[in-house]
Amino acid sequence: MNILVTLNSNYMKPLKIMLYSLFVNNEGEAFTIYLMHSSMKEAELSDINQYIADHGQSLEIITVTDDYFKGAPVLKHYTKEMYYRLLAFKFLPSELDKILYLDPDILVINEIRTLYDMDISGSLYAAAYHEIASVTEINKLRLKPYDMEAYYNSGVLLMNLDLQREKMKEQEIFDYVEENKKRLLYPDQDIINALYSQDIKNLDEVIYNYDPRYYRYYKAVSSGKMDVDYVIHNTRFIHYRGKKKPWNKNYTGKFHSIYKHYEKEALTE
Amino acid sequence: MNILVTLNSNYMKPLKIMLYSLFVNNEGEAFTIYLMHSSMKEAELSDINQYIADHGQSLEIITVTDDYFKGAPVLKHYTKEMYYRLLAFKFLPSELDKILYLDPDILVINEIRTLYDMDISGSLYAAAYHEIASVTEINKLRLKPYDMEAYYNSGVLLMNLDLQREKMKEQEIFDYVEENKKRLLYPDQDIINALYSQDIKNLDEVIYNYDPRYYRYYKAVSSGKMDVDYVIHNTRFIHYRGKKKPWNKNYTGKFHSIYKHYEKEALTE
Repeated sequence: MNILVTLNSNYMKPLKIMLYSLFVNNEGEAFTIYLMHSSMKEAELSDINQYIADHGQSLEIITVTDDYFKGAPVLKHYTKEMYYRLLAFKFLPSELDKILYLDPDILVINEIRTLYDMDISGSLYAAAYHEIASVTEINKLRLKPYDMEAYYNSGVLLMNLDLQREKMKEQEIFDYVEENKKRLLYPDQDIINALYSQDIKNLDEVIYNYDPRYYRYYKAVSSGKMDVDYVIHNTRFIHYRGKKKPWNKNYTGKFHSIYKHYEKEALTE
Repeated sequence: MNILVTLNSNYMKPLKIMLYSLFVNNEGEAFTIYLMHSSMKEAELSDINQYIADHGQSLEIITVTDDYFKGAPVLKHYTKEMYYRLLAFKFLPSELDKILYLDPDILVINEIRTLYDMDISGSLYAAAYHEIASVTEINKLRLKPYDMEAYYNSGVLLMNLDLQREKMKEQEIFDYVEENKKRLLYPDQDIINALYSQDIKNLDEVIYNYDPRYYRYYKAVSSGKMDVDYVIHNTRFIHYRGKKKPWNKNYTGKFHSIYKHYEKEALTE
């Protein structure tokens, strides 16, 4: 399976934990990790390469030089890395037809073959959106002029690269950024939603993009069915969204101990 | 290492989870599990035997017939199993000099060799007590006439069998039960504390008998040091004491997700 990640030095540790959890819960699968970056040091790249090799998997490094995005509009507080996910199809080998993008603040706790083999032939992406009204409504309002049914989270993104190469235009993305500079809060996610939400196949958020902050909500709306037991057996990706991260001291949320368990296993083997 | 467990049918599942966590976090160690029981069915014993064999470890079954305890006083709501832990030294092979008793509501999350090799030559047991004032004070009061420094928890109990055979008298235990019938709340634990607390080597509760209900307390008294990260890396036994158990639907406490993680691993391999 092809996995896409982007990396900066701050996320080295969580990236390893994410990859470790992916490998250990998908035994017998062969992964090629495509890592897009611009400014990682040689030693850091060699470290992550060794880590992946030690787990019997492969790494392909894609170094994106800054001048590629010379003509692209920039935003305050955002580097050009915001375009990586959107334009990955331009940088990845042309023979790849599909890839799964994963944020580093994710824990993979079950098999992902079911997702990877999902038929997405008519869609650019498969992704989940978080149903909780406040999140969805706020983001919809912010991007109003566009016809959006939901605000998808781009932390787990299955990409139909063939169709993306055919339909997505770099200039359209740059134009959108230029026109909406002031309104973009999560640039890459906003762009995917604003321009392509009609072409996204919807994934079940509890299975494919579980946000621990919504634990009580998921449990309540499912009449108690979606408890910790359900998540452990069914969820594929726990996505630790928000500012408080489980590898930091200040985290107080749900699914803390399982994160720390994987962290220990990932970093002490 | 020698491990002692007792079993009734209700605890079959947690026992497997406890043993699984013990094995997987103590790779390269050879365990002999001594299982004391009186009324388990042949099929159940064969099931647990198979489970232990599948993990490359050994089981020894000790069937305690009821007439062994003919002369022993009984308590309302308690079966004669309350004597198993206390009198294990009588039932275990005479060549064993040491054994570690573990409750089934425990998760073993790190190596236990350090504990097992601890020098307990002058003590009957090694155990931890829970520092929290309310627990200690209440139990001390209840058993007042006896000179107790602390009320030890008997869920993790390293036993010096040689010294026990020498010093502990069956009749003394029976006499104590007879005299204190009305005051015994947790009979075996109460007896160990009342009669032998001077001969117990004290273990660090955070390391060897971590109670998730006291998470905030441990963290507070250590100025934040003993957080989830600390527990994952240092604690050997998480002991899910109290009525709410992590394998039941009603559990809401800390260290829930890691329990469910081990449960899945233990029962689906």
